[in-house]
Amino acid sequence: LDDLAILGVGSTRFGAYGGARTARDLGREAVCDALRDADITPDMIDAAYVGTSVTGLLTGQESMVGQLALEECGLVGLPITRVESACSSGSAAVREASLAIRAGTARAVLVLGVEVMTSASTAEGVSALAGAGDIDYEGALGMTFPGHFAMIAQRHAYEYGTTREQLAAVAVKNHENGARNPKAHFQRQITAEQVLRAAPVADPLGILDCCPLSDGAAALVLARRDDRGPRDVRLRACEMVSGTYADDRPLTEFETTPRAAAAAYEEAGLGPDEIDLWEVHDCFTIAELVHTEDLGLCGKGEGGEYIASGATAAGGEHPVNVSGGLKAKGHPVGATGVGQLVELTTQVRGEAGERQVDGARAGLAHCMGGFLHGDSGSITVSIVSA
Amino acid sequence: LDDLAILGVGSTRFGAYGGARTARDLGREAVCDALRDADITPDMIDAAYVGTSVTGLLTGQESMVGQLALEECGLVGLPITRVESACSSGSAAVREASLAIRAGTARAVLVLGVEVMTSASTAEGVSALAGAGDIDYEGALGMTFPGHFAMIAQRHAYEYGTTREQLAAVAVKNHENGARNPKAHFQRQITAEQVLRAAPVADPLGILDCCPLSDGAAALVLARRDDRGPRDVRLRACEMVSGTYADDRPLTEFETTPRAAAAAYEEAGLGPDEIDLWEVHDCFTIAELVHTEDLGLCGKGEGGEYIASGATAAGGEHPVNVSGGLKAKGHPVGATGVGQLVELTTQVRGEAGERQVDGARAGLAHCMGGFLHGDSGSITVSIVSA
Repeated sequence: LDDLAILGVGSTRFGAYGGARTARDLGREAVCDALRDADITPDMIDAAYVGTSVTGLLTGQESMVGQLALEECGLVGLPITRVESACSSGSAAVREASLAIRAGTARAVLVLGVEVMTSASTAEGVSALAGAGDIDYEGALGMTFPGHFAMIAQRHAYEYGTTREQLAAVAVKNHENGARNPKAHFQRQITAEQVLRAAPVADPLGILDCCPLSDGAAALVLARRDDRGPRDVRLRACEMVSGTYADDRPLTEFETTPRAAAAAYEEAGLGPDEIDLWEVHDCFTIAELVHTEDLGLCGKGEGGEYIASGATAAGGEHPVNVSGGLKAKGHPVGATGVGQLVELTTQVRGEAGERQVDGARAGLAHCMGGFLHGDSGSITVSIVSA
Repeated sequence: LDDLAILGVGSTRFGAYGGARTARDLGREAVCDALRDADITPDMIDAAYVGTSVTGLLTGQESMVGQLALEECGLVGLPITRVESACSSGSAAVREASLAIRAGTARAVLVLGVEVMTSASTAEGVSALAGAGDIDYEGALGMTFPGHFAMIAQRHAYEYGTTREQLAAVAVKNHENGARNPKAHFQRQITAEQVLRAAPVADPLGILDCCPLSDGAAALVLARRDDRGPRDVRLRACEMVSGTYADDRPLTEFETTPRAAAAAYEEAGLGPDEIDLWEVHDCFTIAELVHTEDLGLCGKGEGGEYIASGATAAGGEHPVNVSGGLKAKGHPVGATGVGQLVELTTQVRGEAGERQVDGARAGLAHCMGGFLHGDSGSITVSIVSA
């Protein structure tokens, strides 16, 4: 995608607003921030894409979230398209925006990711998220996402000797990073002991192995690169694949991740050695561990030791989730994928303050949407660079 | 869109399956039919778009409808993107498919529109559809879609003298057309007297002025035109706009329709005089009447007389909804926009049997998604031709 640039970004703080903020309200804040950051007026935007998933199920406001949020920033009349792809709804929306520009139908496109999850109970939230799996079979058998990922963790421990302490290291690292991010849901450090002693959810995962349900919004302006200003960063790739669901696939990996990443590296003309930071879909501690392996940051089965060594910490060899990730920054489903690109843009611009990765020139975002037959429903991998 | 062709189409019968058929099941039937009709194998499909709206709210199966339906036809591994735009979800999905091809990322794309609505109660269905409006304000005031359109009908009668009998003529015509469509939800004729005596819903609209909640799926294969075979038809335009919500806008028209239609005529290089049939969003009788005016088939305020004259009947000057429309063919929300293009493709191929429009060479589809502040949330207008 040699021709695309991110002109501006905006984000609310992610958090649990408990119904005090609507999708319209959160969306408006992020969109107006992104327009201001891009120094662009609403009339220069040709189209908008909105990634939002379970807000309809949880609040009843299904289809018009985009129209309502954008209207308050003066964005009316243009094509507004909602994209829904479970937890990768936001990154899928970015992908559609890139296609609209490449197709020649738009010069500048606004992308909004937004979700309201905490206006309902946690049980209702978890139940809504089950709609990102197969409710007729797996759902009917009582499978939930914590259950799926607990099975992966059990199998990873069995195959590779991965320990509970190594899983906890993911949570400790991401909370340490979140404590440096003023937009994060959780801005406090936690200890390994706290993770190990936390209330059990699905063995071996405890509550501190799980990302929270969050509310929040993130937005960006994508445009043709010839519009680039000094603070713009390039969107080099935005690739998506869905699962193939082979019966003999190991439970401890997602074949979708290397496939999407390979396509993104090729599209970007950049290799993994040229990536300075990684935003990775850590919905559970075991998820980050598996994705770290599947992205090739370490060998298969080595994720536990690798993470425990500090290699993925903010100052490590391969910083993963310096934003705090889903675990500490929070996971307002539809906003997550856009939020990852907001973080990468901020880092590549050198504007990340306390959590700035020194000399960051390129970053990769990995987002997982849905879970079917032990595989991912959809994986999106995007690459941005200076 | 000089370069795009519809290679194949498929559709289930639309109907009220009362939970006996899932979105996966309906989707599979339509997708496999479309692949067969296009004489194409799954490995030739590069991407898929899925339009579905309230199935998640009504059945809990939110994000993975596409993956589940496509998997059973051998379509795995490719990018699968769900698009949601209320009642125009299907046509919005077709638009994204056209962008993916024009962007150069796909050669052949599968589009599926699917909805399951009758597994829940009618009250739950109507409540879910309210999420296609503004639930915080208009919804909280008790507005539903029948209420909105009843207000439009009242105002249209006040401004232009439109009568209850003229509205009924829309329903009578569309049921007459539906009776000739083996895929229609309702395949029986009704009389004007039946419409006038039907149970009231929102004055002046009775139950026979309203389209049903339906289940169903429709699919098509879109590809670059250089792949065209003898039965392929061209997709000449697929344009979308959202509302502008001006305070002084009359209640009796949607400014979005002429705006989207003008863009589509320009893109297609065809004028209204070259269109042989029209599939129009007749969610209520008054809606078809207003859209007929807004599309320029007659002057503003003349819709009632024009329709009552028979000009929009199957053998009339401007045949509108020869498929039966939403009113009689049915309205499985996400499937509707794709189903309109299935009908136009079938007509332009000359394969519409009993309801064939003589010499049909070009058709226009008009789809409305959502309703905000008395205006449409989104309007899609597509044009196909031989």
